[in-house]
Amino acid sequence: MRKILIIGIGAGDPDYMTVQAINALNRADVFFIPDKGDEKAGLRNQRLAICERYIKAKAPRFVTFRTPERAKDFTDYKANVADWHAAIEQSYKRMFAEELGEDQCGAFLVWGDPALYDSTLRIVENLLASGAIAFDYEIIPGISSIQALAAKHKISLNRIGESVLVTTGRKLAEKFPSDADSVVVLLDGDQTFASINDEDMEIYWGANIGAPEELLASGKLADVKDEIKALRVRLKRENGWVMDAYLLRKAKDG
Amino acid sequence: MRKILIIGIGAGDPDYMTVQAINALNRADVFFIPDKGDEKAGLRNQRLAICERYIKAKAPRFVTFRTPERAKDFTDYKANVADWHAAIEQSYKRMFAEELGEDQCGAFLVWGDPALYDSTLRIVENLLASGAIAFDYEIIPGISSIQALAAKHKISLNRIGESVLVTTGRKLAEKFPSDADSVVVLLDGDQTFASINDEDMEIYWGANIGAPEELLASGKLADVKDEIKALRVRLKRENGWVMDAYLLRKAKDG
Repeated sequence: MRKILIIGIGAGDPDYMTVQAINALNRADVFFIPDKGDEKAGLRNQRLAICERYIKAKAPRFVTFRTPERAKDFTDYKANVADWHAAIEQSYKRMFAEELGEDQCGAFLVWGDPALYDSTLRIVENLLASGAIAFDYEIIPGISSIQALAAKHKISLNRIGESVLVTTGRKLAEKFPSDADSVVVLLDGDQTFASINDEDMEIYWGANIGAPEELLASGKLADVKDEIKALRVRLKRENGWVMDAYLLRKAKDG
Repeated sequence: MRKILIIGIGAGDPDYMTVQAINALNRADVFFIPDKGDEKAGLRNQRLAICERYIKAKAPRFVTFRTPERAKDFTDYKANVADWHAAIEQSYKRMFAEELGEDQCGAFLVWGDPALYDSTLRIVENLLASGAIAFDYEIIPGISSIQALAAKHKISLNRIGESVLVTTGRKLAEKFPSDADSVVVLLDGDQTFASINDEDMEIYWGANIGAPEELLASGKLADVKDEIKALRVRLKRENGWVMDAYLLRKAKDG
């Protein structure tokens, strides 16, 4: 039976790799490496560097695949994502059939944790459910950018006895959540934080966390929002990509 | 300057240790190991087993400290926790002064991730802010039980474009949160899930995740809640302790 490993490789820093993830790297015969265009070449190189550092068992094969583009014009966000995932699923199906022997093991390397805002697991599940090809799969958790953010800022994600909402820029733009004391935001390309006007709000922000070019900022949102916007622009210009995460909460005791 | 490392050692399975955490273990001169009484002896032994497996640099010293009991009678939950933390802070102060030389490094080993529902970081911060003793400190993130839960169940924590609330049994008992699509619950000694009556609700549950005696269950909440209650009782009886986590969400497409 073909085996697929979905390996969380942590947020940027190769030292975030777990022993379980390193063992998984050494089980794989083939690595499926997405090619998302030139601007993400830095990310691809970081994946390869992790393989080079940790793989001792055998010389693996790398299969690069071109990720289909997500349609830019759409009315329904979830349908748009579902169509995009369906296109990626077809490339997975082709790769599993053509690149993996019946008893071989293939692996995806996922930034952060595969269970948080990553589509690899969902696409693999859909492919298996389609019945088009038989395989078994495993998930290996990794240190997410959320955890790296908290460690770098030396903060707890939650306050005592309180809850933490993990959400997206898109959801945050709809409305500020009322049920959570701390709000962690991922995938906010539109810098939604900058449109929040609340004198009590504090932000702990980080970009390209764990990577050598990591940037951090924190303070009263009103005081630092412009600085953060400028840092994002600089990172994008200098590195070709920027991925950021931040925590928002209202100042109070506790 | 004294250095304190707060090291996330992951959720139960020693293979969840990161390279960063292993390096941190090998930097420490002294490990501060809490003694929470006989029923938690299994947890203490797991900490020591991790040290034995991964420490190669030097023979560290282990200092066991008796964790003060939290007062059982209280009216204000947060004040009760604050009093308890203040008592623990005094034992930290004593240990740092008496057990660590001026240039030595001490370490706490925290289950899961130090940034999620663990008080070590907060107590260390308070001690530093008190000015009673000078030291520097670092946080090393670890794989949380939430991530291990998702990996074992082979699920994503979030659905496409949706948010995830991480909360406690105590908060869940107050009211079911309305802003989150998926709800992850920790610290639920009262089995609050069992009092939720919603035919559409699904649960992904795990206890002592990562440990050899790990148990998992999932399905429609109405169908599996009694089974989960029975499994908790059995684990507690057989192992002396049970720590569980679960994800709740309503069945729907996506």
